Amino acid sequence: MSIILGIDPGSRVTGYGIIKVVGNKTEYLGSGCIRVVDDVLANRLHNVFTGVSEIIRQFAPNQFAIEQVFMAKNPDSALKLGQARGAAIVAATSANMPVFEYSARQIKQSVVGKGNADKTQVQHMVTHILKLNKTPQADAADALAVALCHLHTEQSMIRLSGQAKKTVRGRLR
Amino acid sequence: MSIILGIDPGSRVTGYGIIKVVGNKTEYLGSGCIRVVDDVLANRLHNVFTGVSEIIRQFAPNQFAIEQVFMAKNPDSALKLGQARGAAIVAATSANMPVFEYSARQIKQSVVGKGNADKTQVQHMVTHILKLNKTPQADAADALAVALCHLHTEQSMIRLSGQAKKTVRGRLR
Repeated sequence: MSIILGIDPGSRVTGYGIIKVVGNKTEYLGSGCIRVVDDVLANRLHNVFTGVSEIIRQFAPNQFAIEQVFMAKNPDSALKLGQARGAAIVAATSANMPVFEYSARQIKQSVVGKGNADKTQVQHMVTHILKLNKTPQADAADALAVALCHLHTEQSMIRLSGQAKKTVRGRLR
Repeated sequence: MSIILGIDPGSRVTGYGIIKVVGNKTEYLGSGCIRVVDDVLANRLHNVFTGVSEIIRQFAPNQFAIEQVFMAKNPDSALKLGQARGAAIVAATSANMPVFEYSARQIKQSVVGKGNADKTQVQHMVTHILKLNKTPQADAADALAVALCHLHTEQSMIRLSGQAKKTVRGRLR
């Protein structure tokens, strides 16, 4: 059994989504946003850190997946995003969780089947895959997509390693 | 009595410096660098977080000062620096420490008397002010300079508030 916490980091809003995987069944556990409005940077980062730590305490995930950032708009926004991302990641490592990173392209490809899918398509597919009654808010949907991307990547790695073994055996015969 | 921890954040090397202030006496307690060489980002950030946390446990500072970053070279380096900075700041807020930020210009002005001083001048003045036998390594000297800048700023604020009081009293008479 895996409980995967997906995080979509942002300087003002950090989306989170938690899914539970038992065998080939995927279950939605929760999602939402950590919003930080404090004027003081240290307080905002502390709220991200304690927010993520609180989610880890509540849902006890054993895997942590976060969106990788490649193209920040400018140095200023990259710095702000980096700070929030750093706070979220050390919340995970402090709880001894392994951290996995996926690019926006990988996430969209994995969930929608198109690396350049837009936010609405991600929301739609997350709602469909997890059989939700209500479409989650965009940042929460992105976080659930990160978690689903990690699940799909893990499953395909298990399949690949299974195949690789067979190939090696085939050659050895 | 104040014990001030100064931090000069970096994506690969985080400088730290600790000074103790009793009355108008300033004492050097320690300085050094947290070097992170791990290939995995999460491990690097975890090392910054645990490194700063360990320094806080060892020296029990009650104030935390960190260099503010205004002009990062490019979005990529800004993101990396931001992540390390975020990890260092949440180590401080997790220990319930107040966080103060100073620009490179303020720090150099406060320690050298010139906002555009170079690294060697900062090392020289930090060695002189703290009466050190040996010049600290550049990142450690920068961190000690952040701590000294916070001390000077605090002292001048105390002086200013004292003056302001006198002026108000003068006017009231």
